[in-house]
Amino acid sequence: MPRYALLLEYDGTGFVGWQAQANGISVQSVLEAAAVNLACGGPVATVVAGRTDAGVHASGQVAQLDLPVARAPTTLQGALNFHLRPHPVVVVRAALVDGAWNARFAAISRAYVYRILNRRAPPALLANRVWHVPHALDAGAMHEAAQALRGRHDFSSFRAAGCQADSPLRTLDRLEVNRDGDLLEIHAEARSFLHHQVRNMVGTLKLVGEGRWPRARVAVALAAKDRAQAGPTAPASGLTLHAVRYPSDPFAT
Amino acid sequence: MPRYALLLEYDGTGFVGWQAQANGISVQSVLEAAAVNLACGGPVATVVAGRTDAGVHASGQVAQLDLPVARAPTTLQGALNFHLRPHPVVVVRAALVDGAWNARFAAISRAYVYRILNRRAPPALLANRVWHVPHALDAGAMHEAAQALRGRHDFSSFRAAGCQADSPLRTLDRLEVNRDGDLLEIHAEARSFLHHQVRNMVGTLKLVGEGRWPRARVAVALAAKDRAQAGPTAPASGLTLHAVRYPSDPFAT
Repeated sequence: MPRYALLLEYDGTGFVGWQAQANGISVQSVLEAAAVNLACGGPVATVVAGRTDAGVHASGQVAQLDLPVARAPTTLQGALNFHLRPHPVVVVRAALVDGAWNARFAAISRAYVYRILNRRAPPALLANRVWHVPHALDAGAMHEAAQALRGRHDFSSFRAAGCQADSPLRTLDRLEVNRDGDLLEIHAEARSFLHHQVRNMVGTLKLVGEGRWPRARVAVALAAKDRAQAGPTAPASGLTLHAVRYPSDPFAT
Repeated sequence: MPRYALLLEYDGTGFVGWQAQANGISVQSVLEAAAVNLACGGPVATVVAGRTDAGVHASGQVAQLDLPVARAPTTLQGALNFHLRPHPVVVVRAALVDGAWNARFAAISRAYVYRILNRRAPPALLANRVWHVPHALDAGAMHEAAQALRGRHDFSSFRAAGCQADSPLRTLDRLEVNRDGDLLEIHAEARSFLHHQVRNMVGTLKLVGEGRWPRARVAVALAAKDRAQAGPTAPASGLTLHAVRYPSDPFAT
């Protein structure tokens, strides 16, 4: 069966997350329901690079899809987008890939961006896209503190209780905090992340930003390998899966 | 009565526009209903810098509000934002201004940004925030053509039939078209605009961007002083009132 790579954008607000679940609509179920129309009615299965949680968005998610019949990628893209309506999920690009390629296991890095709207007024234009923090945050202090998390570490202090990964060891390649006016953008990049790792790191850095934690305490929390020693989980609404990288870009043609 | 300047952000999608109308909810009516709670139940009146149309957004609208009782600006801001919920309208800043200051007549410039999402896939994260144009646009050609519109001209070709301005003469200080990936941003700035002027200019530049019009035809359309010689009106969803400038910034404290 021909295999396709799909570059996906979605607004995660109304979904229970990527993965199909009994208690609501998932991005995966919506995508697979759209794909059934192109699979002669047969069942279809997708594999995704990053299984985002409820409320988490994607501007550069990557999924694979096997179809019983070959189709031109632009035809596939148009047909999927037609059947995805009115759900806020779109196929930004589609490409035919080798049958041995795997959207999840071939990925060498995931890049997330976490946005904090740091002003008194709640968001109007960025509703459901940011974490609203009304009191002033020191982005410079957050960035400095974040550097202690870069590199290869046991991230148990930033790992959700339900995380199913075999090992708490991860290599964090990038963790940057930048301010643009009222908006803080936190860029995190790694080969892979533990469950809730980005949101737990952001929730911890926020404590530094508001002056409740000294910068050095982030390294202490990391070394403790104890979830209770780090900060709370930042809300899902601020998180977006921004990009997935592969040894060779499946969409570069 | 003390007068306040309010910096407003709103998502115009669900509104009939700024101005109160019989056929739906306006931004003005929502703001005035919130303000009544702070005016001892008496009626309140607002004046706004730019009367945006239905579906048009604002990130930097400015309105004035007179209150019978003086209140600290941050208290006023917080109370208005409380009463504005759940409408997607927020007061980003509030400031006490001189009683002779007028949000509309004191303004020396209005800056709008118009966003076009230029890719095959419709928007998911930017739904209701952009004009979706699926075929490739030449942003460089659009920018070049736009320069013919800068300066002082009779803009009758870009003026809505219902426009109530006394004169079709306007001075366009800036009209820039920039591309950032799939997103085109068109920045327009002038002391004031005719009704639909920005959207009519964008709808015309799009004809250049898709190659249906040579660049020079924009100057010809302008010189014709005839609405029928210019392009169609671009959709409201792409337009945002970005900033209003005054001789001295009322919010600079």
